[in-house]
Amino acid sequence: MREPQQDRSRATRQRLLEAAIECLADVGWAGSTVAVVAERAGVSRGAAQHHFPTREDLFAAAVDYVSDVRTEWIREHSADLPSGRERTKAVVDLVVRMYTGQVFRAALHLWVAASSDPQLRELVVPLEAHVGRAAHQLALDLLGVDESTPGVRETVQATLDLARGLGLANLLTDDGKRRARIVERWAEMLDASLNTLA
Amino acid sequence: MREPQQDRSRATRQRLLEAAIECLADVGWAGSTVAVVAERAGVSRGAAQHHFPTREDLFAAAVDYVSDVRTEWIREHSADLPSGRERTKAVVDLVVRMYTGQVFRAALHLWVAASSDPQLRELVVPLEAHVGRAAHQLALDLLGVDESTPGVRETVQATLDLARGLGLANLLTDDGKRRARIVERWAEMLDASLNTLA
Repeated sequence: MREPQQDRSRATRQRLLEAAIECLADVGWAGSTVAVVAERAGVSRGAAQHHFPTREDLFAAAVDYVSDVRTEWIREHSADLPSGRERTKAVVDLVVRMYTGQVFRAALHLWVAASSDPQLRELVVPLEAHVGRAAHQLALDLLGVDESTPGVRETVQATLDLARGLGLANLLTDDGKRRARIVERWAEMLDASLNTLA
Repeated sequence: MREPQQDRSRATRQRLLEAAIECLADVGWAGSTVAVVAERAGVSRGAAQHHFPTREDLFAAAVDYVSDVRTEWIREHSADLPSGRERTKAVVDLVVRMYTGQVFRAALHLWVAASSDPQLRELVVPLEAHVGRAAHQLALDLLGVDESTPGVRETVQATLDLARGLGLANLLTDDGKRRARIVERWAEMLDASLNTLA
């Protein structure tokens, strides 16, 4: 038995969340109001405010939602990853792609805005912790490594920190060519390091 | 023969540049006007505008200035660095500290603002390239490695990208404890990798 109204409501919510990320990545936090996002999503302002009373609610939900969708998508496609040495490279590539796209750009605007806005910070800090933990677990699972082995946890976290740094380097210019060489090199180092630790 | 007026002018300029970085790191780009910076520096608005006609001029000069001062400071103190394996750790520590302080926080505000402001972007892109090249050269020199050896360039760049990522992770919460473990681990990997490449 379908429930058309619930479906519509869910679809509206989803459109708002996706428009919020696009908007944040394009124009930054200052220009991203609920009204602007509602217009971009083709939803009335009233309907948008019914779902998300404040823009803080909207953007926190949006980052959470798109991160979950992306993580789920990667998990579903992880069966296609190669094995052995090629796998390490493919995983590093995937992880770095998570941090160089629109979602990272949107999150960056949110983090920087939160760094000089205590109210927004309170909302963003637990969100960032949640997204960070999910990315860490995903990287562990994809690499097939056990973080109880000394050094593995830090090595995997360094991979995520490096990916964040590469995301930042891609903010103002297309850093794709340089990034490909760093990813290649990092994958070699990561592979050697995980083999030494195991 | 001293030239008091030139000295005064130089001191004023320097106070403005330092206040600009503090201001940008504290309140972000939106709140950082020439007037606000002038007040923080204890300089009249007219004098500030004499030195820097626009806030874009002021902030580009500020990031450039503080990056140069910092690089110079590190070069002067590089004789104190230990040798051998301990040196790699000390250099990674120094590089990471360059990206976790106030100057990085200020630069981050500027980059993110520039990503949705084409005029500011035009100013910031060459500035970022200049600061990035200086950091790369500094890291090469401190590590005492030769980037004509295949793989060295990418390994050193990965170190700087990692440092940027760690800087970002320190934006909203004090990440010092986790960061110390990542730095330790990265120094081990970097040392092993540079020895393999050499």
